[in-house]
Amino acid sequence: MSKYSVIGTRVHRVDGPEKVTGNAKYTFDLVLPGMLYGKVLRSPHPHAKILKIDTRKAKRLIGVKAVITGKDTLGRKQGIWRRFPELCDEEILCREKVRYIGDPVAAVAAIDEDTAEEALDLIEVEYEPLPAVFDPLEAIKEEAPQVHDGVELNINVTRHIEWGDVDEAFKKCDHIREDQYKLCSQAHVCMETHDAVVSYDYGGKMTVWTSTQSSYYIQRLMADMTGLREGDIRVIKPTTGGGFGSKFELDSAQFCAAILSMKLCKPVKIVLNREEEFTATKRRTPMYYFLKLGAKKDGTLLAKEVRVITEGGAYTAMGATALYLTGFFSSFPYKYPNYRFDGYRAYTNTATTSAMRGFGAPQSTFVGESQLDMMAEDLGIDPIEIRRKNGMTPNYEVPGQAYIQSCGLHQCLDKIDAHIKERGKLPPNHGIGVSAYGFMSGGIFNWFDTPYAFSAAIVRINIDGKVDLFTGACEIGQGSDTTLSMICAEELGVKLEDIRIHAADTGICPVDLGAWGSRTTLMNGNAVKMAAADAKRQLLEFAAAKMGPNIVYDFDIKDQWIHLADRPERGISYFDIVKEAIRGKDGETIIGRGHYTPHRKGMISPAYSFGVQAAEVAVDPETGRYKLVNVTTAHESGTVINPVGIEGQLEGAIMMAGGYGYCEDQPMDEGKILNPSIADYKLIRSLDMPETEILEIDTYEPEGPFGAKEAGEGLTNPTAGAIGNAVYKAVGVRINDLPITPEKVLRALKEKQKKSK
Amino acid sequence: MSKYSVIGTRVHRVDGPEKVTGNAKYTFDLVLPGMLYGKVLRSPHPHAKILKIDTRKAKRLIGVKAVITGKDTLGRKQGIWRRFPELCDEEILCREKVRYIGDPVAAVAAIDEDTAEEALDLIEVEYEPLPAVFDPLEAIKEEAPQVHDGVELNINVTRHIEWGDVDEAFKKCDHIREDQYKLCSQAHVCMETHDAVVSYDYGGKMTVWTSTQSSYYIQRLMADMTGLREGDIRVIKPTTGGGFGSKFELDSAQFCAAILSMKLCKPVKIVLNREEEFTATKRRTPMYYFLKLGAKKDGTLLAKEVRVITEGGAYTAMGATALYLTGFFSSFPYKYPNYRFDGYRAYTNTATTSAMRGFGAPQSTFVGESQLDMMAEDLGIDPIEIRRKNGMTPNYEVPGQAYIQSCGLHQCLDKIDAHIKERGKLPPNHGIGVSAYGFMSGGIFNWFDTPYAFSAAIVRINIDGKVDLFTGACEIGQGSDTTLSMICAEELGVKLEDIRIHAADTGICPVDLGAWGSRTTLMNGNAVKMAAADAKRQLLEFAAAKMGPNIVYDFDIKDQWIHLADRPERGISYFDIVKEAIRGKDGETIIGRGHYTPHRKGMISPAYSFGVQAAEVAVDPETGRYKLVNVTTAHESGTVINPVGIEGQLEGAIMMAGGYGYCEDQPMDEGKILNPSIADYKLIRSLDMPETEILEIDTYEPEGPFGAKEAGEGLTNPTAGAIGNAVYKAVGVRINDLPITPEKVLRALKEKQKKSK
Repeated sequence: MSKYSVIGTRVHRVDGPEKVTGNAKYTFDLVLPGMLYGKVLRSPHPHAKILKIDTRKAKRLIGVKAVITGKDTLGRKQGIWRRFPELCDEEILCREKVRYIGDPVAAVAAIDEDTAEEALDLIEVEYEPLPAVFDPLEAIKEEAPQVHDGVELNINVTRHIEWGDVDEAFKKCDHIREDQYKLCSQAHVCMETHDAVVSYDYGGKMTVWTSTQSSYYIQRLMADMTGLREGDIRVIKPTTGGGFGSKFELDSAQFCAAILSMKLCKPVKIVLNREEEFTATKRRTPMYYFLKLGAKKDGTLLAKEVRVITEGGAYTAMGATALYLTGFFSSFPYKYPNYRFDGYRAYTNTATTSAMRGFGAPQSTFVGESQLDMMAEDLGIDPIEIRRKNGMTPNYEVPGQAYIQSCGLHQCLDKIDAHIKERGKLPPNHGIGVSAYGFMSGGIFNWFDTPYAFSAAIVRINIDGKVDLFTGACEIGQGSDTTLSMICAEELGVKLEDIRIHAADTGICPVDLGAWGSRTTLMNGNAVKMAAADAKRQLLEFAAAKMGPNIVYDFDIKDQWIHLADRPERGISYFDIVKEAIRGKDGETIIGRGHYTPHRKGMISPAYSFGVQAAEVAVDPETGRYKLVNVTTAHESGTVINPVGIEGQLEGAIMMAGGYGYCEDQPMDEGKILNPSIADYKLIRSLDMPETEILEIDTYEPEGPFGAKEAGEGLTNPTAGAIGNAVYKAVGVRINDLPITPEKVLRALKEKQKKSK
Repeated sequence: MSKYSVIGTRVHRVDGPEKVTGNAKYTFDLVLPGMLYGKVLRSPHPHAKILKIDTRKAKRLIGVKAVITGKDTLGRKQGIWRRFPELCDEEILCREKVRYIGDPVAAVAAIDEDTAEEALDLIEVEYEPLPAVFDPLEAIKEEAPQVHDGVELNINVTRHIEWGDVDEAFKKCDHIREDQYKLCSQAHVCMETHDAVVSYDYGGKMTVWTSTQSSYYIQRLMADMTGLREGDIRVIKPTTGGGFGSKFELDSAQFCAAILSMKLCKPVKIVLNREEEFTATKRRTPMYYFLKLGAKKDGTLLAKEVRVITEGGAYTAMGATALYLTGFFSSFPYKYPNYRFDGYRAYTNTATTSAMRGFGAPQSTFVGESQLDMMAEDLGIDPIEIRRKNGMTPNYEVPGQAYIQSCGLHQCLDKIDAHIKERGKLPPNHGIGVSAYGFMSGGIFNWFDTPYAFSAAIVRINIDGKVDLFTGACEIGQGSDTTLSMICAEELGVKLEDIRIHAADTGICPVDLGAWGSRTTLMNGNAVKMAAADAKRQLLEFAAAKMGPNIVYDFDIKDQWIHLADRPERGISYFDIVKEAIRGKDGETIIGRGHYTPHRKGMISPAYSFGVQAAEVAVDPETGRYKLVNVTTAHESGTVINPVGIEGQLEGAIMMAGGYGYCEDQPMDEGKILNPSIADYKLIRSLDMPETEILEIDTYEPEGPFGAKEAGEGLTNPTAGAIGNAVYKAVGVRINDLPITPEKVLRALKEKQKKSK
């Protein structure tokens, strides 16, 4: 029997009933009295000067209440790296220049969406088109057009990571491989597009309802951009239909709705349509990867050198972090004694690239795991074996970068090894590829330069024993409301139904940096656990007093029963003690507080998860088409808080990461995205999904709540690499640019035939 | 110069801008996605058995989503006196019997109000009319119909108060008067009628938006009546358009919307129309008053005996308290050495009578002040003099009942005396009447049997110095959001604009019993002050640490400047210390907590306000019509927190209390209210308003925050009495049944002429 009553059990999501009945209210559903509807006018040019914007005709249209341009803003530029003004480069409403097709130039508020749409057509913008650049390798040439004035060679940021002596080490290698890769774009495709309802009132206070991964960031960014005091802005996240990294920064829906609302003192709603969602929001970073890997004959990896040039698009966004993390995770999950990474992010006249689930690691894992399989083949070593030989182990330090405490990589390798052996001999043209990976459990980097704790929580126990849990954590579909409620219930010794969570409302909840970097379970979970422990302690004081002075054993609470830890039959009802404690405190509710900020845990993350995935494909060599037959994953995430949640994360990740390897892409023509609809943008559908299996791994992370760590984002890393390796095993061809489409497989098969003739 | 920076200053209401621009959102304004509209079917009979309710036709109407009757409820009965089950007697949706015209029997939810209304006509209710009783003096007769089974003589509750030896004392009196009065009904006439939006979701949680004076009571009563756990019910009070005592208990809008929403899992809105508001909500208690007053020749009052029979209407509601308070305040504001009160509340087949601003005291003040003037005349003593002789003084104990600390009655008498002398000789048929009164600052009686503190507050200081003030206090128009924000700002040493108040939302705010009995400024004010002081202490710790170990002076904060109390120039910005303190607490916000429950303060209230009012009328003896010329009030409320607020309270009170004396009434025919519209129900309009003047009195209440006490409800007490006494002074006639209409004055003048002939 588990020592836990709540965590580790299979429960329904706390937001499940409302969601499955269609009753949950998203920002999209909100209607406020007197609300207006906004629309955003966007640049049709990838690069152009704005000579003139004439809004007079639009303003005269009946039903139009306001038209705004960059002149109605303070002209400030937003950025998430608040300590570096040069990285705050996005105006949102452009005043002088547009830099990608979709850059906002004006917005309208009207009595309905149709009128607002019609008004957009009446805004006359005079542009002077400028030469544009779309590929990062072109952008860094001397003669390339400048996307931002004063940025030499369009290089937005560079990142360098190094340890050991890479050049010397390569000299000692028995075998060296150099490979190049090209990594495609990917859209987040949240079911809920970016949207916001903003209500600025006559008292000078602004309320923002929006689909976001961080209410707190939106509050701060909105304050920066509007000049309002942050305390005068309340950001509320209603039910949210996905984020995946696309919903941190202030977007055009939020900002334009805010400026319009401030002009009118009326609520304004803006919902991006699906085309805007595909073309004018952030996306996964395309990269050129140049890899050099050196090993001894026995497979020991001695040195790795990585050079990356990323397509930044028009603005910085979180691109600097994606660049750094792809460099950091290029060393994962192996112990390289010598390592060098040089990354460059180039501005281009394309939609901005930024954070997306995995945040640089799916790229590095695909290229690293592809190359490692080739290295193993070159050396005649089994792919699992080369990973065993070099894989990270518990209490390993990534030199100068990170301290890894728990690490179950080797258990994962064992389980996957057994799994592959179990599959036995495969049918012809079938292949199983493996891919190992690691990921962080929340970022330590304080890019937002906040003096607040990274996560905080408040637990309030009411007279009926119901517990109000206040947290800034953002439930975006990943299940944090459920996981945090479970942690709270477990620590406090009550049932899940005793918890009522209030989250992601800056007006009432303590701060949390948001849902990114797989940080919520570990960071907010620690804060919630601490708050629950604080509240519990207050109850136990009363219990101890009540049960007499001769009691010296420790008390505990479990399943609503406060009892002596060693004599559980001696106890008293939680509900009775709650009443007593509140009466004893002269009628004040019990309030517990908790917070978490990582201290002295290296530069990246307080904890790391690891995993190994095996993908089996069946390729049709006549057409190049292939099918994902089975994807089996051994993912170690420390103590599992919410097993059903992890299964959901796994399935969702395979759908998304499989899509990244298999079919998703955003082809462009002169900066124009050619497939901006769900009809044309190919996702893995339920019918395309492989069998999925999850193999349980038992680890314990000392830094995590109840030993838990990351369980959501890391799962996005391995699949593209596993598919690539599986296709190679099946039919002997390697595709080095994502996605691995049937066309590319077929072309490679033909080349191979040609060569073998 | 005042020692205060915020309190005592003339500020705009914090909710002012939104209200004066029409932008504030009342429950009435709320629209939720998928919301349905409800209507309530009410009894046309004052007393009847329900034989059958057939809802089939109504259910078949297109657009109707649900029809409910009492069978869809748990059949429980609500009541505010939770410790006394026999006083919980109101089912809301009647199952077996209706007891007044307006008693709810069914409700409908439909896609719009018209459809719901139409459906009501299709519900077939078969009644068996029963004999009914309307007057309390009839109701207590043996042969009267029984309103509730098993209640002998229809006597709902009795109340007895006694001290001294009344019978002996009367023997020692030189003069005894016996008088009888009849006190009319009065409607609250809130600008916002009773309304609610209730959303019950598939997760089993209910959210209630409603116009209420106590979110907490509604939460608890709703839990009692629906069987839900109170923590699963969140009650939110949006902007509210008046309460005046009518909005405590669960009403038909709230309850029917809840039951319909639980049935449908959709939001349901019910807004009572004005006719329902007049006929089917609670109202001021009509009373028969029998008074006996004995005095010595010199005007010393020796004994008073009071008997009261009140018209209870169909249910208990807060009528038991109105009965007790009219008895208690019948001794006010005088020192009676011997006193006896016997009160009886009789059930009748009329709309329930309950709390209304003044809560029994306007009745007792009218009758008491009328009789006292007559006693003074009988004895040949000036009305001011007889009040001086007997008036309460500081640190007086009402025997066995109450401890009065601050009392400025004598200052008030002096000021009004001077005012009357200033007015000099009046024109013919003009008269000035005076009326003295006292009132409580919040009730001590825990009728709700709550283990919570009576008031609690939480203060959270954020990184930008903005202060979130969380309180359960209910802003119903009386200005509590402003007053509490001022108290918070003053105590914390910041500006009013630094405060953002979150109030009356049971999901996020600490408990408060609500806006009744003039309790908010004193009780919630104390909680807010304590919470602010707690937060301030935490800032001062950092300031002291920062300014070095040699600092031994006391620190203080004022106007955002933290400084040495004795050397104000040595200090540091509040904003800087906030940042330091939050960083020092590892990023947690500063949170301060406070609460208040009166301890050892007698049975009624922790503090009492006093006042004297002088009303001047000009009577036209030909028609009996009279005009309120001037109403001047000396009201002592301790330290004045919000002077503009008090002026508003005074003007509103004169309008309402003047209406009680002058024109408001609810005449009935066989239990049917004959004037259920604002066209027919006569209110004092702005054109009818007299000049009003407020005379400042300087007192300090040790139990109140910064010395403050009641400043709102007490002002409703004197006006009817002052008008009655003024009419007598002007034309020599006394009207002993309210309201004092021109018809009654004219009739009395004619009787007087007849007699004098």
